[in-house]
Amino acid sequence: MNQKIDFTITKLGKNTVKSPIPYSVEKDKGGARFVSDDEFILPSNTLKEQNTDSLLEKAGPREMIYFNPNHVHAGIVTCGGLCPGLNDVIRAVVRTLWYRYGVQRITGVRMGYKGFLPEYNLPVKELNPYIVDHIHNMGGSILGSSRGGSDTVRIVDAMERMNLNILFTIGGDGTQRGALAITKEIKKRNLNIAVIGVPKTIDNDLSFIHKSFGFDTAVERAVEAVNTAHTEAKSAIDGVGLVKLMGRESGFIAAHTSLATSEVNFCLIPEAEFSLEGENGLLKKLEERLDARHHAVIVVAEGAGQNLLEASGETDESGNKRLADIGLFLKEKITAHFKKIGRESSLKYIDPGYMIRASAANPVDSLYCARLGANAVHAAMSGRTGMLISQWNNAFVHVPIDMAVSKKNCVDPEGSLWRDVIESTRQPARMHD
Amino acid sequence: MNQKIDFTITKLGKNTVKSPIPYSVEKDKGGARFVSDDEFILPSNTLKEQNTDSLLEKAGPREMIYFNPNHVHAGIVTCGGLCPGLNDVIRAVVRTLWYRYGVQRITGVRMGYKGFLPEYNLPVKELNPYIVDHIHNMGGSILGSSRGGSDTVRIVDAMERMNLNILFTIGGDGTQRGALAITKEIKKRNLNIAVIGVPKTIDNDLSFIHKSFGFDTAVERAVEAVNTAHTEAKSAIDGVGLVKLMGRESGFIAAHTSLATSEVNFCLIPEAEFSLEGENGLLKKLEERLDARHHAVIVVAEGAGQNLLEASGETDESGNKRLADIGLFLKEKITAHFKKIGRESSLKYIDPGYMIRASAANPVDSLYCARLGANAVHAAMSGRTGMLISQWNNAFVHVPIDMAVSKKNCVDPEGSLWRDVIESTRQPARMHD
Amino acid sequence: MNQKIDFTITKLGKNTVKSPIPYSVEKDKGGARFVSDDEFILPSNTLKEQNTDSLLEKAGPREMIYFNPNHVHAGIVTCGGLCPGLNDVIRAVVRTLWYRYGVQRITGVRMGYKGFLPEYNLPVKELNPYIVDHIHNMGGSILGSSRGGSDTVRIVDAMERMNLNILFTIGGDGTQRGALAITKEIKKRNLNIAVIGVPKTIDNDLSFIHKSFGFDTAVERAVEAVNTAHTEAKSAIDGVGLVKLMGRESGFIAAHTSLATSEVNFCLIPEAEFSLEGENGLLKKLEERLDARHHAVIVVAEGAGQNLLEASGETDESGNKRLADIGLFLKEKITAHFKKIGRESSLKYIDPGYMIRASAANPVDSLYCARLGANAVHAAMSGRTGMLISQWNNAFVHVPIDMAVSKKNCVDPEGSLWRDVIESTRQPARMHD
Amino acid sequence: MNQKIDFTITKLGKNTVKSPIPYSVEKDKGGARFVSDDEFILPSNTLKEQNTDSLLEKAGPREMIYFNPNHVHAGIVTCGGLCPGLNDVIRAVVRTLWYRYGVQRITGVRMGYKGFLPEYNLPVKELNPYIVDHIHNMGGSILGSSRGGSDTVRIVDAMERMNLNILFTIGGDGTQRGALAITKEIKKRNLNIAVIGVPKTIDNDLSFIHKSFGFDTAVERAVEAVNTAHTEAKSAIDGVGLVKLMGRESGFIAAHTSLATSEVNFCLIPEAEFSLEGENGLLKKLEERLDARHHAVIVVAEGAGQNLLEASGETDESGNKRLADIGLFLKEKITAHFKKIGRESSLKYIDPGYMIRASAANPVDSLYCARLGANAVHAAMSGRTGMLISQWNNAFVHVPIDMAVSKKNCVDPEGSLWRDVIESTRQPARMHD
Repeated sequence: MNQKIDFTITKLGKNTVKSPIPYSVEKDKGGARFVSDDEFILPSNTLKEQNTDSLLEKAGPREMIYFNPNHVHAGIVTCGGLCPGLNDVIRAVVRTLWYRYGVQRITGVRMGYKGFLPEYNLPVKELNPYIVDHIHNMGGSILGSSRGGSDTVRIVDAMERMNLNILFTIGGDGTQRGALAITKEIKKRNLNIAVIGVPKTIDNDLSFIHKSFGFDTAVERAVEAVNTAHTEAKSAIDGVGLVKLMGRESGFIAAHTSLATSEVNFCLIPEAEFSLEGENGLLKKLEERLDARHHAVIVVAEGAGQNLLEASGETDESGNKRLADIGLFLKEKITAHFKKIGRESSLKYIDPGYMIRASAANPVDSLYCARLGANAVHAAMSGRTGMLISQWNNAFVHVPIDMAVSKKNCVDPEGSLWRDVIESTRQPARMHD
Repeated sequence: MNQKIDFTITKLGKNTVKSPIPYSVEKDKGGARFVSDDEFILPSNTLKEQNTDSLLEKAGPREMIYFNPNHVHAGIVTCGGLCPGLNDVIRAVVRTLWYRYGVQRITGVRMGYKGFLPEYNLPVKELNPYIVDHIHNMGGSILGSSRGGSDTVRIVDAMERMNLNILFTIGGDGTQRGALAITKEIKKRNLNIAVIGVPKTIDNDLSFIHKSFGFDTAVERAVEAVNTAHTEAKSAIDGVGLVKLMGRESGFIAAHTSLATSEVNFCLIPEAEFSLEGENGLLKKLEERLDARHHAVIVVAEGAGQNLLEASGETDESGNKRLADIGLFLKEKITAHFKKIGRESSLKYIDPGYMIRASAANPVDSLYCARLGANAVHAAMSGRTGMLISQWNNAFVHVPIDMAVSKKNCVDPEGSLWRDVIESTRQPARMHD
Repeated sequence: MNQKIDFTITKLGKNTVKSPIPYSVEKDKGGARFVSDDEFILPSNTLKEQNTDSLLEKAGPREMIYFNPNHVHAGIVTCGGLCPGLNDVIRAVVRTLWYRYGVQRITGVRMGYKGFLPEYNLPVKELNPYIVDHIHNMGGSILGSSRGGSDTVRIVDAMERMNLNILFTIGGDGTQRGALAITKEIKKRNLNIAVIGVPKTIDNDLSFIHKSFGFDTAVERAVEAVNTAHTEAKSAIDGVGLVKLMGRESGFIAAHTSLATSEVNFCLIPEAEFSLEGENGLLKKLEERLDARHHAVIVVAEGAGQNLLEASGETDESGNKRLADIGLFLKEKITAHFKKIGRESSLKYIDPGYMIRASAANPVDSLYCARLGANAVHAAMSGRTGMLISQWNNAFVHVPIDMAVSKKNCVDPEGSLWRDVIESTRQPARMHD
Repeated sequence: MNQKIDFTITKLGKNTVKSPIPYSVEKDKGGARFVSDDEFILPSNTLKEQNTDSLLEKAGPREMIYFNPNHVHAGIVTCGGLCPGLNDVIRAVVRTLWYRYGVQRITGVRMGYKGFLPEYNLPVKELNPYIVDHIHNMGGSILGSSRGGSDTVRIVDAMERMNLNILFTIGGDGTQRGALAITKEIKKRNLNIAVIGVPKTIDNDLSFIHKSFGFDTAVERAVEAVNTAHTEAKSAIDGVGLVKLMGRESGFIAAHTSLATSEVNFCLIPEAEFSLEGENGLLKKLEERLDARHHAVIVVAEGAGQNLLEASGETDESGNKRLADIGLFLKEKITAHFKKIGRESSLKYIDPGYMIRASAANPVDSLYCARLGANAVHAAMSGRTGMLISQWNNAFVHVPIDMAVSKKNCVDPEGSLWRDVIESTRQPARMHD
């Protein structure tokens, strides 16, 4: 934690409206309770990393709110690649607005930020509890999604035309940077519009987000792919199963999947360098594994081993740099190696990306999304803006967008998660010279 | 049915041993019963296609058997690509031999026919009910599998060295042709070895096999892939989901999957020609679909549209001709087309092949495999040889190998299955000029 | 087949309207084809049971139909207990009416036949393809269901008031008898209303219905319950897992589930008598099993062992006689027996009934329902009435209601299914004196 | 946190053996690292509840250990009711002992503490990585389990006879109290035996255990049961689905399940009192719900509403008091109430207990169990005793057994979890007068 930490949350103004939610207001009188503005969470779980000046505000419903529910017109937009749970978050936002606050003007913006831009001519979708009743059983986003379209000025123009006073942005790194720019443009124009983000990052790579929604579901689906690879590997002569998983800069999905199955022999992630050649290199170690057991399973995060590849220099519409395909690269290198040394081997390559990200959320993710969505509404109604809802240190908290996107969350190669992966895979702790 | 039909089953000799199974032998006295050798099944379900001279022998346990169970040493081999249910069939064969007949010498040959060949140096695997107790919950084959290795003379040499008197060959078209050659070589050498096949063809393309084992499971998994494609398509601007499924010469998996989901808009199979260009061509029809609904799902069997591709002329180790990849071909053609006409569209291509074929069997396939395996043992113990176990016209029957491999089983483009697919997809009944 | 067989199908009148479906009409010209009225299916698959005078009419779209689609108002009703696939059938009926025939007046009657009766005051539900788009992913029936309410005269009164000219009745034995009565009342009143049934019987006990829809899904869910019972049994000292499954008069679910898992040691069905006491009785055999393996799994169909119980003499609203609860009876008897002989044992009783019947259909059932529903619409549009859609001898056929309900379909205790169950469970072929 | 907090961990002696695990020992040199004995975790995530004198020791592998791996004979026992993940923990313990420390004498004690008692005559089960290779795919415990048998003196006698120097006790509250008694008896006899517990409590009711293993899987299965109840309720006239879930003193499963589905209208837990009668009582509120929507789903934890029932005063073999059955009680009361007021309603009661607890762990629980088991081995090898492995405040930590069992972990009826449940169910915040 060397970065400058400032968890102060921006508010649109004073909270002068009484919340319509029938909670108890006195502590210790029994029954559910409002959260007060002086409840905070420690950012760290250890003594020495603690900075007690810098605390995270607790999320939840406030007794006094900023917006009069009758005047609220809320918008929801989902951006970037698909992720399990998008529909669950949409559903929770709609239900909490409607049933708890009585807000009845809720508009879904179609296909990401592009939905705000007139040239795409995308009709908005009116939302209410009946429309969203069953959507949590479906993968994807009923609003659709896209990368790009982050044209701040014209988005705020569109928001003004629509008379939105709340915008929920469900998306990753790029989306939330866009939301921050929108917040600043709103401030510049002196508008009273709250912008609340729900962070979506299947890679789990945002800061101060303990576990992003959809992550557990992604691991569940990834485990199925790994089991397939294991089955193929075991059923062939010196069979190798190679599975590419998500993880552009962080190997969380690969690491968790490896731990969950115990069938993985090599887990390759961006945070832990590896070489192909040499005594400690992957090819040599793979040969040793095949000598011993005659089959092997390799899991590789899409951002791993980039040093081995020629960077393309390109970026996608979200501004992410295009990664060269490490999966296909390894497939070719391993196949060529065994051909060269004259060993009959059979490599099966599995890329389950779409089948993972388009899944419906599993129940644990569903409930997580339900709580994220509800807390996002409470934050917006209380006039907070330019912030994300996050679960951190076992509590739902408010995180300023700039703190969340300041640094990537990565697997600590000296930490306990990676250590347990190495215990499970029994791969060398260091796979390069 | 223009082929010459001869369903006569070859037997090794007279059945002089009393079956050790404690069934009732008299009809109408209650309790399970042996099958007698004069029970037959009609090959067709319509009057006009019926040829009453040509009937299929009913499978099942006989009161008098050929082999003395104490002298039996049975071998099992699984060949070709993986398919859900291989372990279930192995398990049923082992359990029926062991528990019903008391046969205790059962040997698994590793990695397909190659396991017979000394140069591969593959140790055999002794099999018994304890070893196979839980294997039906796992995909793949505990014996492993491979293509090729069909070296008849040396396989029979190995069988003689091992003193096998029964061989169960679990595999497809090529495997069963191999089994037929083995049967002939056995006959030439005057050996008393029974060879019984259990037909495995995930494509469902063997004759006189109503539905091959693993087919239902394959459809179930394929449906998951199509749902993913549908989710991706709906969540993008003019999104197209393209799924490649098994089906080299027969489109059964593609057709059944399309019917099971009703999310498929174009189902492309080898049996129904289609063009890309022209008024009735796929590209034009796809544009119309996107105009109307803004998303589309295409399912393509791997053998479809081969006329559109350059044949490579190569074959794989099983002797199947290598097909050019219609999935990647369509992906490129469709993407290029939309680029050319300047339409923003997003195509996601999903190839779930390994994830389908390496699945564990679902319960309905498990029970089917259990019955196939049991009936294979009954056939072998009664001295039958050179034949397959099949379910046909709602009964388990014996089919001579040459009848089963004589002709591919295909989707009838004038029949009710294809008609129902067209009803469900609402694709044109004819998609070429 | 000793019953009098008359498969003649009743038609409302001459077919004078050209079908709007764009199929090819000439054979061998390629492309999907209409079914002609002279296509028939043999009722049996063996030579000796064949009666070639008595053939089943093939289902499917006719070139000439009876109703003018513009004048059609179709009703759909689902009756009796829940069953996987109800929503799939509703969906297929709606889609086929709407997309193939252009029928746009489709009305769902709520909560079974009671939905016709004014005193229940149940509003009907207008149906169209958008409303039914996702319902196949849900269990139950979007129309609701109930037993009883089969008040023929008042139902036909209601149908007249609603101006229905087609009614689809999705339900079991009792429902279809009701449909037959409705057909007769319609005839008496000289109305032109077609009544087409889709047989629903999770027990699989109707005649000339090869496998009822939802059956495979039911077996899949039942297998999960049996696996649970097996796990509990193995994890306890002399543990016994007891699972009660559907099957009032036919043990098909119990038999198929036992075959699918191979974990069942005793499968008890209505068709095979058993005693508790005596040398061959269940209690003695259970003790022997526990001596040998220290755990046991028992599956009992709800209609099994009724001779051991006092009949209550009551009936439910559908007119089915109330069965005494064999599951609880066995639980008590077994527990008491082990207590009496002083043996520590632990019995876990599982009754998964609702969790089975309220499941969504699996993909194979979904596709089956899709085809049943489509064929029901084709039958109705062609003016057929008083009949069911069935799959029999591998073809979709028309079966007169009275033939289907004339006799229960039962497991043949001398046949191959029961024999294979006995092979799998290794229970005695005869479990009474 | 009013209890006296002392997190000091007991150790058998000085750590003088070098760990055989090849980790890096220097920080910031890259690669996985040992945990040092001065790494601690804060017990709370808020400032005011923090007591910085009282910290939890971090779990993980130590560079110096207590036991010489060559001399170790480890025992494993699983006690109490089944829970998803038992086999995963066994597997992780065996693999970590074997592969990381080279311990090859590992003994499974059968059927809980009873397996130590000579009168049960239960043979032990030798464990190694091959035997446990696939067990994580199975529910239950391969060692079996039972309640009771906690005869401290004779257990330690048996441990001495077996020459165990490590015992892993996998079980709940009662089991861990037993483990504490065993630890004390070991100390009294001056033996060098480490006793390490892995806490198993499907109810999630132990202190300083953030989430017990198997909990997520239990919620997943419970959600399936609730979906069934919802389907049944919606498909009937004024249908009510009633589901009883685990939760003797803590309503965590009921609360999480309600949040995960959003189909629950009334969630009843032990921590929140409710009445049946009166204006705010369940019966009145249920009527209002049926008036509005015509179906309702109730989830009840088994320990809820005990004030409404006559206590039986009995206890089970584990010493837990027998609860009267709130599920059956509610079923009868609700049914009687609607009969009394003359309203046609249909209640379906579902008790999925065994189907939940006997499930295999889902992937997320599998990975959690893998890490718990590995950390338990590290703790034992370092000579710690009388403690549990727990995940708390996002870290794996050591918790003295007496702190964990000192107080039940309960749902805080004023906290955010219960608040979010009330938001989701929209049940009254207070359901009694």
